[in-house]
Amino acid sequence: MPASFLDATTLPALLRAAHQQPGIPGTPGNRVPVWFMRQAGRSLPEYKEVRGEGTILNVIADTDRATEITLQPVRRYGVDAAILYSDIVTPVWAVGFGIDITPGVGPECEEPFSSAADLQRLRPLEASEDLPFQAETIRNVVAQAGVPLIGFAGGPFTLASYLVEGKPSRTYTKVKALMFGQPDLWHKLSDVLADIAIATLTAQVEAGASMVQLFDSWAGALRPEHYTEYVLPHSTKILAAMGELGVPRTHFGINSGELLGLMADAGADVVGVDWRTPLSIARARTGGRVALQGNLDPAITTGTWAVAQTETLRVLADNDGHPGHIFNLGHGVMPESDPGVLKQIVELVHEEGSC
Amino acid sequence: MPASFLDATTLPALLRAAHQQPGIPGTPGNRVPVWFMRQAGRSLPEYKEVRGEGTILNVIADTDRATEITLQPVRRYGVDAAILYSDIVTPVWAVGFGIDITPGVGPECEEPFSSAADLQRLRPLEASEDLPFQAETIRNVVAQAGVPLIGFAGGPFTLASYLVEGKPSRTYTKVKALMFGQPDLWHKLSDVLADIAIATLTAQVEAGASMVQLFDSWAGALRPEHYTEYVLPHSTKILAAMGELGVPRTHFGINSGELLGLMADAGADVVGVDWRTPLSIARARTGGRVALQGNLDPAITTGTWAVAQTETLRVLADNDGHPGHIFNLGHGVMPESDPGVLKQIVELVHEEGSC
Repeated sequence: MPASFLDATTLPALLRAAHQQPGIPGTPGNRVPVWFMRQAGRSLPEYKEVRGEGTILNVIADTDRATEITLQPVRRYGVDAAILYSDIVTPVWAVGFGIDITPGVGPECEEPFSSAADLQRLRPLEASEDLPFQAETIRNVVAQAGVPLIGFAGGPFTLASYLVEGKPSRTYTKVKALMFGQPDLWHKLSDVLADIAIATLTAQVEAGASMVQLFDSWAGALRPEHYTEYVLPHSTKILAAMGELGVPRTHFGINSGELLGLMADAGADVVGVDWRTPLSIARARTGGRVALQGNLDPAITTGTWAVAQTETLRVLADNDGHPGHIFNLGHGVMPESDPGVLKQIVELVHEEGSC
Repeated sequence: MPASFLDATTLPALLRAAHQQPGIPGTPGNRVPVWFMRQAGRSLPEYKEVRGEGTILNVIADTDRATEITLQPVRRYGVDAAILYSDIVTPVWAVGFGIDITPGVGPECEEPFSSAADLQRLRPLEASEDLPFQAETIRNVVAQAGVPLIGFAGGPFTLASYLVEGKPSRTYTKVKALMFGQPDLWHKLSDVLADIAIATLTAQVEAGASMVQLFDSWAGALRPEHYTEYVLPHSTKILAAMGELGVPRTHFGINSGELLGLMADAGADVVGVDWRTPLSIARARTGGRVALQGNLDPAITTGTWAVAQTETLRVLADNDGHPGHIFNLGHGVMPESDPGVLKQIVELVHEEGSC
């Protein structure tokens, strides 16, 4: 929806900032919105109480627990967004690719993707049949949260990296070997993953998500020329489909300082910035055409409030009152993050941030 | 040594490029120099023949094997530099900190650095007594290599990260906690590590190293403000000491796109650039005041020659004939790298590179 059609006096802060609309004094949206990637989960004691044993994919598929876990950080922190409790591999798990999330490790595949034959394990996603729990969780959360819900999906490179490497990787050797060595197969795989992402996100929006985030967390492992050739067309397709649904789109990765302009060009309304790139530099690189999300170093949230206060104010100062700022960490909340510090960060951003 | 005092007609290509001197047709230095980080070691079959069992620290301390291993890639590839076969943790191992290199894992400490008391395990390095094998290996190599030898040491953040985390880390949570939470102790630790680096590098230069590289490989985990406050003063001290010895200094890290200007300002003659940042962008960010080293994606060296050829030419084209270019990978050679491809890269750079 073009920003000019929006009524800025009633927009929640998250959506106001996504559209780069200045805050209007006296309206609810007149504050810097703040939420945290991975705000739900391991860092919260109340999560551990409902988590149970086994793979988190079973928790994600249990709408009662997923609803509760999604709402926990909204209650505790007073953040400006809920984000669906799920994982980027949920859709490929649901279509039967053969992937699980191993506690303490991450996504693992017994048989990684290695040839065209493996495309057969990635049939099209029918969200209503394959992910029925997702829509129900979203409807439950939206009824209770009082803030917008963000839907999400994995970006092509990041999701492919798990399927091809078969586990988390530091070097992405196998997925790059596929990309450079078998570009036709790479593009087929990415196109299939893009369609799965579109089906996932569309169902999320239809169920009530007000905004979506494409997590291409590891795309920063690529130099700009390779990102442009191998990833950008597929991300563009996903974000274009979301544009037709009228929801703001955030595009995120880490180590992506050199890709920020390209990630904006893919059709984002908001670009997520990791902590390495000051927002002022990120804004110059994206030419002001997108809002920015970020970018406190997550490690800061494991320490004292005194340091976190200084660093939160540093991020706000670096943004310099630009209305297109969604405060967040530069990557996810860590298992060692202090929920007390996170809560104080939310309060400080709401008190001191200007928009 | 100021570049104006150098005779460019006799300088080896490595040093000519480090001083950003244009190539002079008909002289030996008139080519783009190329070497590879981790060119010695796991990727070479001839290395596996002499490697033996146990920790590589024992191999490093065995001058016969270390000399042979250092020379192997020079013979095989025809690279423009030898680099001492050693590890950034060798000096702290030699002073008895309590660290080892676990095969398949990396540096590990049974008792990581956690308080001021641990400074006692980092006594000053007496290179002639603690690292006698180092000087002997260098003298042996210099007598036989026919190309300059590069010495090296670990940068303060990277070395501290191993001591504090006790093992390789993806998030650097503990070392950042020390840095942000106990800045006085951080600076004491870094100063001790800087002194150890200076003693190490000084001994290397006295033994015959023609150039030094400071590997602060993981410093890119920090945003520029934190790098400036916590790391830059210590790196500057190290590089200033090397400047007094008159050898060119390379300063390297990965994920360091936002730090390139600062890493130049630390007193480098050459800044190493990982594959994420095109050299043209790196040159703009460093204002042309340093030479650049890099920056082919190491993953490319695990694939076909056809792809490696295209990508090598891309890096050369991006450098656009600037005389201050030392061709290298953006990070180290991988265990899966193909020595045949590496050899062809050397030949192509020598044939097609212009300086």
